[in-house]
Amino acid sequence: MSNKMWGGRFGEGPDRIMEEINASIGFDQRFFAQDIRGSKAHCAMLAETGIISRADADQIIAGLDAVLAEIEEGRFEFKRALEDIHMNVESRLADLIGASAGRLHTARSRNDQVALDFKLYIRDTIDHLDEQLADFQKALLDKAEANADTIMPGFTHLQTAQPVTFGHHCLAYVEMTARDRGRFADARRRLNESPLGSAALAGTSFPIDRHMTAKALGFDRPTRNSLDSVSDRDFVLETMSAAAIAATHLSRLAEEIVIWSTPGFNFVRLTDGFTTGSSIMPQKRNPDAAELVRAKSGRVIGDLTSLLIVMKGLPLAYSKDMQEDKEAAFDALDALSLSLAAMTGMISTLTVNAKEMRAAASRGFATATDLADWLVRRLNVPFRQAHHITGALVARAEKRGIDLDGLSLDEMREVEPGITDEVYSVLGVDNSVRSRTSFGGTAPENVRASVAWWRNELGSREK
Amino acid sequence: MSNKMWGGRFGEGPDRIMEEINASIGFDQRFFAQDIRGSKAHCAMLAETGIISRADADQIIAGLDAVLAEIEEGRFEFKRALEDIHMNVESRLADLIGASAGRLHTARSRNDQVALDFKLYIRDTIDHLDEQLADFQKALLDKAEANADTIMPGFTHLQTAQPVTFGHHCLAYVEMTARDRGRFADARRRLNESPLGSAALAGTSFPIDRHMTAKALGFDRPTRNSLDSVSDRDFVLETMSAAAIAATHLSRLAEEIVIWSTPGFNFVRLTDGFTTGSSIMPQKRNPDAAELVRAKSGRVIGDLTSLLIVMKGLPLAYSKDMQEDKEAAFDALDALSLSLAAMTGMISTLTVNAKEMRAAASRGFATATDLADWLVRRLNVPFRQAHHITGALVARAEKRGIDLDGLSLDEMREVEPGITDEVYSVLGVDNSVRSRTSFGGTAPENVRASVAWWRNELGSREK
Amino acid sequence: MSNKMWGGRFGEGPDRIMEEINASIGFDQRFFAQDIRGSKAHCAMLAETGIISRADADQIIAGLDAVLAEIEEGRFEFKRALEDIHMNVESRLADLIGASAGRLHTARSRNDQVALDFKLYIRDTIDHLDEQLADFQKALLDKAEANADTIMPGFTHLQTAQPVTFGHHCLAYVEMTARDRGRFADARRRLNESPLGSAALAGTSFPIDRHMTAKALGFDRPTRNSLDSVSDRDFVLETMSAAAIAATHLSRLAEEIVIWSTPGFNFVRLTDGFTTGSSIMPQKRNPDAAELVRAKSGRVIGDLTSLLIVMKGLPLAYSKDMQEDKEAAFDALDALSLSLAAMTGMISTLTVNAKEMRAAASRGFATATDLADWLVRRLNVPFRQAHHITGALVARAEKRGIDLDGLSLDEMREVEPGITDEVYSVLGVDNSVRSRTSFGGTAPENVRASVAWWRNELGSREK
Amino acid sequence: MSNKMWGGRFGEGPDRIMEEINASIGFDQRFFAQDIRGSKAHCAMLAETGIISRADADQIIAGLDAVLAEIEEGRFEFKRALEDIHMNVESRLADLIGASAGRLHTARSRNDQVALDFKLYIRDTIDHLDEQLADFQKALLDKAEANADTIMPGFTHLQTAQPVTFGHHCLAYVEMTARDRGRFADARRRLNESPLGSAALAGTSFPIDRHMTAKALGFDRPTRNSLDSVSDRDFVLETMSAAAIAATHLSRLAEEIVIWSTPGFNFVRLTDGFTTGSSIMPQKRNPDAAELVRAKSGRVIGDLTSLLIVMKGLPLAYSKDMQEDKEAAFDALDALSLSLAAMTGMISTLTVNAKEMRAAASRGFATATDLADWLVRRLNVPFRQAHHITGALVARAEKRGIDLDGLSLDEMREVEPGITDEVYSVLGVDNSVRSRTSFGGTAPENVRASVAWWRNELGSREK
Repeated sequence: MSNKMWGGRFGEGPDRIMEEINASIGFDQRFFAQDIRGSKAHCAMLAETGIISRADADQIIAGLDAVLAEIEEGRFEFKRALEDIHMNVESRLADLIGASAGRLHTARSRNDQVALDFKLYIRDTIDHLDEQLADFQKALLDKAEANADTIMPGFTHLQTAQPVTFGHHCLAYVEMTARDRGRFADARRRLNESPLGSAALAGTSFPIDRHMTAKALGFDRPTRNSLDSVSDRDFVLETMSAAAIAATHLSRLAEEIVIWSTPGFNFVRLTDGFTTGSSIMPQKRNPDAAELVRAKSGRVIGDLTSLLIVMKGLPLAYSKDMQEDKEAAFDALDALSLSLAAMTGMISTLTVNAKEMRAAASRGFATATDLADWLVRRLNVPFRQAHHITGALVARAEKRGIDLDGLSLDEMREVEPGITDEVYSVLGVDNSVRSRTSFGGTAPENVRASVAWWRNELGSREK
Repeated sequence: MSNKMWGGRFGEGPDRIMEEINASIGFDQRFFAQDIRGSKAHCAMLAETGIISRADADQIIAGLDAVLAEIEEGRFEFKRALEDIHMNVESRLADLIGASAGRLHTARSRNDQVALDFKLYIRDTIDHLDEQLADFQKALLDKAEANADTIMPGFTHLQTAQPVTFGHHCLAYVEMTARDRGRFADARRRLNESPLGSAALAGTSFPIDRHMTAKALGFDRPTRNSLDSVSDRDFVLETMSAAAIAATHLSRLAEEIVIWSTPGFNFVRLTDGFTTGSSIMPQKRNPDAAELVRAKSGRVIGDLTSLLIVMKGLPLAYSKDMQEDKEAAFDALDALSLSLAAMTGMISTLTVNAKEMRAAASRGFATATDLADWLVRRLNVPFRQAHHITGALVARAEKRGIDLDGLSLDEMREVEPGITDEVYSVLGVDNSVRSRTSFGGTAPENVRASVAWWRNELGSREK
Repeated sequence: MSNKMWGGRFGEGPDRIMEEINASIGFDQRFFAQDIRGSKAHCAMLAETGIISRADADQIIAGLDAVLAEIEEGRFEFKRALEDIHMNVESRLADLIGASAGRLHTARSRNDQVALDFKLYIRDTIDHLDEQLADFQKALLDKAEANADTIMPGFTHLQTAQPVTFGHHCLAYVEMTARDRGRFADARRRLNESPLGSAALAGTSFPIDRHMTAKALGFDRPTRNSLDSVSDRDFVLETMSAAAIAATHLSRLAEEIVIWSTPGFNFVRLTDGFTTGSSIMPQKRNPDAAELVRAKSGRVIGDLTSLLIVMKGLPLAYSKDMQEDKEAAFDALDALSLSLAAMTGMISTLTVNAKEMRAAASRGFATATDLADWLVRRLNVPFRQAHHITGALVARAEKRGIDLDGLSLDEMREVEPGITDEVYSVLGVDNSVRSRTSFGGTAPENVRASVAWWRNELGSREK
Repeated sequence: MSNKMWGGRFGEGPDRIMEEINASIGFDQRFFAQDIRGSKAHCAMLAETGIISRADADQIIAGLDAVLAEIEEGRFEFKRALEDIHMNVESRLADLIGASAGRLHTARSRNDQVALDFKLYIRDTIDHLDEQLADFQKALLDKAEANADTIMPGFTHLQTAQPVTFGHHCLAYVEMTARDRGRFADARRRLNESPLGSAALAGTSFPIDRHMTAKALGFDRPTRNSLDSVSDRDFVLETMSAAAIAATHLSRLAEEIVIWSTPGFNFVRLTDGFTTGSSIMPQKRNPDAAELVRAKSGRVIGDLTSLLIVMKGLPLAYSKDMQEDKEAAFDALDALSLSLAAMTGMISTLTVNAKEMRAAASRGFATATDLADWLVRRLNVPFRQAHHITGALVARAEKRGIDLDGLSLDEMREVEPGITDEVYSVLGVDNSVRSRTSFGGTAPENVRASVAWWRNELGSREK
């Protein structure tokens, strides 16, 4: 197999099955830009340290730029017989510049090369996801601000619990997303050490300068242990863990959108762009985009599980098992990116049906807690006893098919003689929501303050 | 959007994000043969029951055949704006035969159509996997027969426990594979009910004959509940569960091959076709294929996890989440198929290093159990006491750096005076292996009998 | 450590950490009945084949019965220093009957013993789960029969699609549960081979009769390969896979119950026994039991994942990793059993709010398909064109805030001149449901027939 | 049910199934210290802000201390009918101090209370795990220092690749563990916001001071959104993700210990304390502790999967599903803690068989790369060509059954005439290892420097 770069020793060539199972070029070609970027930094360092001549280095770098151009312009032919992106690039480099191409791989190995490429790729992906997450936060903030006063039922167990504002609900997702960004940022910071120069597994006897390549490639420093450098896929696992949690957040909002869109709720209306019809039921407005975002959380979690399983029990240093890391990561991070785009689009464009939300909040004794709290505050009843009194009043109202504020003062006094008509002032949903001014509470003024705080926070981050 | 088949009602078209997240044609085009097969059966039934005219049916069927030919010959252009395989086929049918194409979808829905296509696909895939599993068994049987007498150390905890034969070891995998085939066969039997005619979710008022289409498509019967029919993905989950267990089996053999190939063992030698070299270490013979098979178990398990998560908590009937079922299933079943091909290839072609295996079995006091059993049989010592005596003898031998048969009779008698020199007859690995004639035991005669039994079993299955 | 049964050789005893990580008696004491049952069968066989004397056997069996009684009566002290159930039982047996206890372990090992115990346990558990699944089916059938005519909206994407009956909906779960039972039955049949007599891994030289013990313990036959017998945990994995799918089914019904119980739906009312209140909101009726059933699917799936990971890449034969199989299995199967009990209880006792269901079905253009089908049948319009016409009519009705039957004939004719007033006969939900008489369709007569079919099926199984 | 604290409204009591599925006291009693700590801080704040009287507060705090003492001293009776730790504590408080106990729950809910308890528990657990991880690092550093010169084969694909030192290998795990600590520290920092005062979901109208309770409980600040506060389990998911990655690291070292302990390697010897014998094979030294650590990674990953599944698709705010979070977290974090203890113990006490390691490193052409690098450095041959020359030399040596340094200079010159006898200076394992002085490389001087760096780093962290 003359086109096999390790050539020489194998009598037979890998047959079709082996090529099928072994070749990674089908998916690792995504790394072309990172691979060439890394090779250029490596080559510059080899020349700077005198390991190769400046003339060879110039030729190699020019050749790598030519290969990059070919790929970017779609003129490059990826060959499966050359297995992976590294060999495809190097082989083409040899076509273009001849024997000096063979000097590029001095003092490195595919083991540190692929670790480098993958780290650069994950770093780029995290940067992209962070922008998407910030855009999602902004879409939520816009919706929150516009709905700082929009009253909806706050649910626990999908039962009406207490009135909240839709703005407050949107802000809950701003918080989750902030944590998601924090996790990705931490992963990025932790991965930002260059494995290049770890070579196959033991380092090298060439007088390389790993700090130089690290700096050139935007890393904080080189990694400290060559065995670890080529065995480590923590940076993928940690990034996928962050993705799994983020996808789970999106699945919760997606579920809410599905439920809010069902006729029994009718709280929001997605634009046509994010719904589809039915081939047999023309009246349907199916929240397909939300359902797909919900489902894709399964995909991201499954991908994380896959890679954890792949890494389980692998002896140091590199094992070929680790080639299975890429497709899982690509699949998970692509799915998250697409989910974010769809969810940001849905949130930005959905219409809030404030009237239905408010009506739902006004049913179901949603201000029972307000009543109990009033009993504590005004009558100095212990909370647990206030709870029992309120329960008795709810039971009465429920029996009569009315809400709490439908009970007359006399009826109330039959249960608790101390009640005065001041009690009615806490029974409306507006009063209820307005009263919850504790830090982090749902009061419209809190929502507005929080939106302002977040806008400032996001703005300052971006400077 | 004139090319959207549900047309009419949506003011705006789905934008690019929606197309990206919503379109399934990128992966469900795999179903083209199943989709057209199902449509032809449906059409024939519509004509037979008088729901459409014979003339329309003839035209539709001829058109479907033409579409099929276009796809098979690579002349078909799949369009993402048409979303899925069903719409792509129907739209092309309309191009070819005009308005009567619109009669094909009478009394069905995409919900039962996709369930049908997927069932047919899974059924075909199971049939293919079953052949591969049978081939794998045959490769194992050949190796077992050739190595009925090849002695190797039997390990527990990767410590030498008792000598076994390599043939016996191969047969263990024949058993596992037989159970795998059983699981796939059960899944196939259970899925073999036709969902076609369940329509969107409620059945139909057209006088269709579901038994006719079921029979035409090789199903045992139609499904019994229309809601279940379009909500059910058990057939995928069960098949993926069987795949996950099978992949786990392969991962165990793969791990053994990796360990057996390491210099400290050197039990087997893979052919060059299933190993690769290193770009920096020319002496390496890396068992890449085995490592990849081991790793792919993670993929299959992750895919199963993904789909279980997707299905968790989905209300009946169809939800768009279920579109995420296909890629997970394709990925898992493709990975298993490729792993089987690679493992069958490796087993068929590997060279057994019988000398190293035997040498390893002869070290490590592997016949200690034989000694203990001899004490029980000949001296009527209770097993637990025999165990203690043997432990003391092993401790002596270990201290002196020799094996059990290196101890003199006098030394043995210091520990247990009743020992006679007959004991040496059970201490060699050949004697040990030969003596284990209990049903299922490792004795060469058992191995040969078991190979014969399995050959007969496999042969009779295939008639 | 004189109380360590392998004694003799280890200078130091395992320290506390080792005892903590190594001891399994904390969980495998569940196997006590299976362990003793297996030992008695083994002992009887040893005597029958002359390997031990009848007198010893009688003493051992009497001793085992005494140990069993002690455990059942709560008089047995499990000791962690004795590690596992096998050693605890055998040690106590030695206390009771002295030295002959040491003959029981002749020709077996803890490796085949634990495989036996676990198989017997799983078999017993499957039998128990099958009864629970049958009870669940019966509860569903009762509900289905009582609600054969109860009209509810059939949903796709949680959007109203077509009217169905609640009886039909219940029957969908009867189907799923039937498949669950089928999977457990297949797992049971496949596992029903006795590993006893495989000994440590290689079989034995004692003239044991494995067919005798297999028969005595209710197995169909002994296993065919000793290495496989002690390495195999397929029977756990397959049972847990079946459990994961079953739990996923329950999670779907649980989600529906949560949604049906929310004020916007109000389709069902759980009894107080399966709901809880809130410490702060006395009006709440939280469907806790349904939520917990939904959540427990995560637990079962996670447990399956765990054990697949444990088994991944394990070389034959027994490795200590396999001790981690039990807690995962117990956790998963207990969770499923509890979920089934809770769900059967909820279904049996919930109140159906037929009025709300019907009202919801009557909104949302649920009979649009019926209209389209009428156009096909009466006007011979191709289905796709009928779909467009219907879409236009729905758009008109939606704009005016009425349902389809609110459109006048004139209005309809503006869209499609061929429409006659016969069309109104298909627009009511009763007509719609009644018309869906295709096999498996939702028509009340189908529901009743299906209930009868299932009652007969379940009855005949139980004879 | 008079002992149900929400009492009043439910006619029937939850039956046994409900109690079984619903009660959490069986596992959440672990939170007793956190629960009481949180209640005391809440009570102090209620008094400080005048919401309750100082006298009531004093009584409540004294009562809580009494309850704490009862639990710590084992005198407390946990009651399942009281469901959870919160109700058990409050009920007992009411027994002890009477009606004023009912004032404690003012302005909070079980929703924020359980979030608080769990956060405090996770925070405590992270602190404990961090100490264990530091201990593990120290054990590795000791081993690394003692083995800075101990030569072993460095593997890729479990094939001998290049010689490394065992010290360098140990340091790879120090790096991994440092990243683990980093992840836990980030999780701790991110979770360190107090949810207390978020009440049921909407905040409260009482004039509470959440900053005061946050500070009292060691939090950096209160959470910013009440809905998020009671819906969020990110802190558990993130901690479990970190645990899953850490457990995967341990599984790799565990696999290595199992392989290093197998007779074909014999690189290390575990103490008796971490091995076990066999009931049937007295010669066995089974590395049970290592196998169990390897297996427990499956458990931790499965638990993470479980909780991600539980959280998937949950609408805000609290759902009962979230009660399933605790057992998964306890199981995973306990398993990791036990695994760390066992692994630290194994590493601290294992004996390194330096002779066997060195002998293995000296076989298998492990210095082929050194030869290729020499060709590049001295003869200025491009790396790829040097690789081909080396391959040819390895092939010759392999054919003759000797290592590279066994080839004569003449034989070498037949392949590459430029080779001089200086080449022999790079072919020994000592030379090889000594030469790899690139940053992070395996040279003994690097290992010593790295140990010193890490000791300083760990020391400074602990001040």
